[in-house]
Parts: sequence; C-alpha cells; structure tokens
Amino acid sequence: MRTLYHLWLSPFCRKVRVVLREKGAEFEMSVEKVWERRTELLAMNPAGTVPILIEPDGEIIADSGPICEYLEDIYPEPALIGTAPLVRAEVRRLIAWFDQKFDHEVTENLLGEKFMKRFMGLGEPNSEAIRAGQTNFRYHLDYVGYLAERRKWLAGEEFSLADIAAAAHISSLDYIGVVPWENYPSAKDWYARVKSRPSFRGLLADRIPGATPPKHYADLDF
Amino acid sequence: MRTLYHLWLSPFCRKVRVVLREKGAEFEMSVEKVWERRTELLAMNPAGTVPILIEPDGEIIADSGPICEYLEDIYPEPALIGTAPLVRAEVRRLIAWFDQKFDHEVTENLLGEKFMKRFMGLGEPNSEAIRAGQTNFRYHLDYVGYLAERRKWLAGEEFSLADIAAAAHISSLDYIGVVPWENYPSAKDWYARVKSRPSFRGLLADRIPGATPPKHYADLDF
Repeated sequence: MRTLYHLWLSPFCRKVRVVLREKGAEFEMSVEKVWERRTELLAMNPAGTVPILIEPDGEIIADSGPICEYLEDIYPEPALIGTAPLVRAEVRRLIAWFDQKFDHEVTENLLGEKFMKRFMGLGEPNSEAIRAGQTNFRYHLDYVGYLAERRKWLAGEEFSLADIAAAAHISSLDYIGVVPWENYPSAKDWYARVKSRPSFRGLLADRIPGATPPKHYADLDF
Repeated sequence: MRTLYHLWLSPFCRKVRVVLREKGAEFEMSVEKVWERRTELLAMNPAGTVPILIEPDGEIIADSGPICEYLEDIYPEPALIGTAPLVRAEVRRLIAWFDQKFDHEVTENLLGEKFMKRFMGLGEPNSEAIRAGQTNFRYHLDYVGYLAERRKWLAGEEFSLADIAAAAHISSLDYIGVVPWENYPSAKDWYARVKSRPSFRGLLADRIPGATPPKHYADLDF
C-alpha cells in the first residue's frame, strides 16, 4: 500500500491528499511529528519536512511539489496541471503563488503563529506577525476573487492543481477560524465549489484533538 | 525575439538563462529594476518579481519554476528534468531544495544582506543574518559534496536542472566572494564541471558596474 507521511493541518500535505483522491489512487496516512526529527524521517527526506510519499515498492518521493508532479506523470488522467504548455505555466505560476508567496505572507503568520507555535510548545504567538498575516490575507482573498470572477477556475477553464494548492492553504486557515469570508463573496463562491468536490471530503472530516474547527468548516453551504 | 526580463545576480534569472542556452533557444535580455515596481512589471507578473519570459508572440510566462518547466515542455531535448517519473521527482526535489531552502537559509542572508540591501539603499546589512547565512552555507556545501561524491551529477547520472539551480545560487554568491571553497573540494569539483559548460559562459562574463567579482569568479581552474 502507498503511504503518505503527513501532518493534519499542513497545506502541503492537504494538497497531496486531494491530488491522490482526484487521481483515484489508494493510500494510507501516517502522522509524522516532524519536530521530533527522528532518524527515519531525515533518511526519507533530508529537509525533515512532510509530505513524503512511500510507494508500494518502497520508493520515496519527498516535497509536495515533486510529489504532485510525479502523480501527474504516472496518472495523466484527470490532468491537474493542464496539457497545453501555456496553461501548464499558468497553473504552475499559481501553485508557486500559493505555496510560496501566500504561505510566507499569510499561512506562516496565521497558522504558524496562532496554531503551530502553541501546538509545538514554541512560546507565545507574535502579535505583529498575526496582524501582518491578517492584512496580507485580505489582499490575497481579493486576488482569488479577481481570478474567480474572470475564469471558471483559478488558472482557467479547468479545475487544476492551482485550485487545490489555494484551497489547501485556505482550508487550514478556515479550520482555525481566521478567514474573513463575509467580505469576499467571489472567493467564497469559488471555495464552496472546491469544497463540494468528493476529493475534498477527507479534509473536511479532519478533527484534531483539542482543536475544534468552527461550525462552518465542514458545511458546504457556509 | 524572445525577451527575458531579469536582474544580473538573481539566481532565479541565472537559472533561466542557463536553461535557455542548454536548449539552444535564442533570446535577448532586459534588466528590470523590480524595486521601482513599474505598472508594466505588475501587469506582466502580479508578484512583481523576475524572471519573466516574453515569447515572440507576446505570451508572458512568469516565475522561474514555471518558466523552466515550460521550456522543458516546448523543447524536450536535451531533457533537463529527466524522463523517468522517479528521476523527475528527484530533480524537482533538489530544485525545491536550492530555490526554497538554500535560498531562504543562505542566499537571502548573504546576497540579500551583503549586496542587494546596499544596492537598493535599504540600509545596513544585518550581521546576525550574515552569520546565520555563513553557517548554513557550510551545511549546504557539505550536502552538495555528499551528492557529488555519490552521483555523477547532483540528481543522478544526468546533468539536470538540479545542477543548474544549485550552480545559479552558488555563482551569485561566488560573484560577491563569499563561497568558502577551500574546505569543500567535492562541491568545488562539481561546480568546476558546471562552470565549464558553454551554457554557463554568459554568467561568468557578467560584470556589474561598481561591483567587481573576485579573480577566481570566471576562472575555470579556480
């Protein structure tokens, strides 16, 4: 059986989980407490991060970007990165946007400070970082709305890994109740469409001991 | 004619320049002072960063990751990301390693603090960041040496985008004279092999007004 080493609220792990579901690939999950830095983790991935995918034959694929591209290579259907080179470039531009820029400007400041820091016993949240994260989040939700008003999905006519990457980050932030949905109807409408996909159900069923999500988290009509 | 908007010492722009040369693609270059944030830049790439590639028909491709994947899509030969899915995953893992982890731990701390900050008039370098960058650099040069001792090239038997990404960062740092080569013979031997490729010549010929590189920068037997 294929195994995904993961952490529940990691947007990068969530992205891989949704891709595996979209591709119809079977897998089991194993929680990896990366902060314990066990030897086996560093042997699988010297960067010491999850997700890590272990194939049934023992082959190891590390890092969410390479894992998603690998899954697209071995399961071309349904295409999640597109087929035309320019479409693929736009999908990948937006994946980089969310997994690097949004992650740095929003996810690390909000999920990192408000949740992971406490969870990992790293001390008090930094209120300046949280304020920056909240401000940045509004610009990014504007951009999601801007794209969603002009295109069927974020990168164009087809649902893609760009939608999955964006929704993975936003779903983690929604779990801790920090998404200002009321002011961003276009982004909300787009997210409702992603949420209603069967591939997303597993994420909406997540419940982390000691951290209950807001009621609307799993609600398809939120 | 294809145009690459770039900055001289940006490792991300250097990576694209080498890929274009490896693919035998013709292009011209235009320096983009991203800190001026001109409207045309933001229209081409809302992230406000370079590299940006403008195709002869006016199509715009932004962000070095998507640009390199796009060039691999339209010019499959010579393959720089490999052909077997597991090889491609390893190449992409190392691209992410250098373009995200190395960039964050080394390039931003050394090139960012020692060069870009002064260049852009952003004040004094942060000496704590520089010390962290120097310490991290040694771990990364160990890793480059570790890979180079076990494989012909960083990701395996074939020269790949992993070598280009790594060498692009290291070449920028070498330009400002902060690579402790004397202690890392395996990394140095690997870099000498990358340096001797015709695709790398343009980078070695770069001369930025007011910032002369050390003598060994362009020397193939350094």
